[in-house]
Amino acid sequence: MHSSVTQTKITRVRGGNQTEETDFLAAEEPLEIRLLFGQAENRKQQSISVTMRTPGQDYELATGFLFTEGIIENFADIRSIKHCGGLNKNVVRVELYEHVAVNIAKLERNFYTTSSCGVCGKASIDAVRTVRRLQHTPSATVNISSTLLLGLPGKLRQTQSVFETTGGMHGCALFNTTGNLVLSREDAGRHNAVDKLIGAALQQNLFPLDSYILLLSGRASFELIQKAWMAGIQIIAAVGAPSSLAAGMAIGANITLAGFLHEDGFNIYAHKERIII
Amino acid sequence: MHSSVTQTKITRVRGGNQTEETDFLAAEEPLEIRLLFGQAENRKQQSISVTMRTPGQDYELATGFLFTEGIIENFADIRSIKHCGGLNKNVVRVELYEHVAVNIAKLERNFYTTSSCGVCGKASIDAVRTVRRLQHTPSATVNISSTLLLGLPGKLRQTQSVFETTGGMHGCALFNTTGNLVLSREDAGRHNAVDKLIGAALQQNLFPLDSYILLLSGRASFELIQKAWMAGIQIIAAVGAPSSLAAGMAIGANITLAGFLHEDGFNIYAHKERIII
Repeated sequence: MHSSVTQTKITRVRGGNQTEETDFLAAEEPLEIRLLFGQAENRKQQSISVTMRTPGQDYELATGFLFTEGIIENFADIRSIKHCGGLNKNVVRVELYEHVAVNIAKLERNFYTTSSCGVCGKASIDAVRTVRRLQHTPSATVNISSTLLLGLPGKLRQTQSVFETTGGMHGCALFNTTGNLVLSREDAGRHNAVDKLIGAALQQNLFPLDSYILLLSGRASFELIQKAWMAGIQIIAAVGAPSSLAAGMAIGANITLAGFLHEDGFNIYAHKERIII
Repeated sequence: MHSSVTQTKITRVRGGNQTEETDFLAAEEPLEIRLLFGQAENRKQQSISVTMRTPGQDYELATGFLFTEGIIENFADIRSIKHCGGLNKNVVRVELYEHVAVNIAKLERNFYTTSSCGVCGKASIDAVRTVRRLQHTPSATVNISSTLLLGLPGKLRQTQSVFETTGGMHGCALFNTTGNLVLSREDAGRHNAVDKLIGAALQQNLFPLDSYILLLSGRASFELIQKAWMAGIQIIAAVGAPSSLAAGMAIGANITLAGFLHEDGFNIYAHKERIII
């Protein structure tokens, strides 16, 4: 059994009857990411994040997190990634090359607070814009048909093994414009699932991602749109609902956003020009 | 229309047809919580959190957050709560009385990192234990019937107005042991929904909460069990799946945890002795 699932004893209650059974739960454990960075004489190590994640693909998660937070520009910025110590699989140390400039202020995750107008949705979107390090400009307009879009959730579900077992996971996937699944990841935390996906895409040299479709198995929050945008993704489809700020971010960032994607249809919240109905 | 919902233009695609419609989205905006605390000569203001939340019940959210993070012990620790400035509804300033001792180190949210054994699930549970400030010890054993439990999700759904409109909200509620809904709250972020609920319970002087049942409309993560435990809740039921760490926390904290609660049954993951089947 994969380490992203743990076994547990449960009491199953159905129609007044109870049975003692063995069941499976989505594993949730904290992951601490430590960063080693700086010039030779100024080399330092710092803990930059603790996230509750499903164990597995920790290196992808760390890579994706560093990228979507604007700390690294590409996978080549990373000299090494390893777990700290044999027994402790919940701390990952990422060593950057000396030439990589790290802005410590940006490591403070709550960059929203630095906005001069206080905190508002608009400020959040502007703040996110300032941290994108992706230099690539989309070379061509991507178009997909609504028929292609309708078939994606079924393809993702076929790969979500842990969800099937535990019912406790968020899935996400990259599809190409012919509707083939290229990469999928899952995690108990939706933001971790996307970080793992983007980290894997970086490691597998799939960038730029501007010709891929990102599918989310649940709701589309602002944070997920932000991460996708950092990676240059132009089309996002979610099985669940988007939030108002997610839709606003998609409109402002020139991202096509579809929500409530089910077999019989979907809603488009931003930039419908990429979908041929 | 309530401010927790925003109106938007969408393109609705169904069976090859598209229509332009007006739809509603769950509002998502950042909320910054600033804390004013300390003795007269040492009074200071500090931003302690930025969370993406659904606007509304901001004072309850701030109150609940401060409580579940172990910063305040009860509502009487707070001298005032207000939004900063007329136009900016996304910053809340909480002023504590001078006698309230605030440990700045605890304001660092990632208290997991301070554990000497590194980071593991066990350490997380231990770390959480050390921050609980609730002095109350449950006076009596609480028992409920499985029939009562089965009826709770339907009662919560009746109150979830924003979810009905947008499909984008997490709900939670407190029920008494006769199955009556006492309080419910919803938010695009599940942890915010629970903070709002606990903050409201504090403000309405419902504490101690050891004779209430907490119902969660979605999955039960570690963080939610932790918050409930800070408030002394002894029975938690979730419509969705628990994570492994959530189940572990419930076992260790003597909390009854039921999951996958639907009309036809549920599973018990911890301390089934409080449920009469």
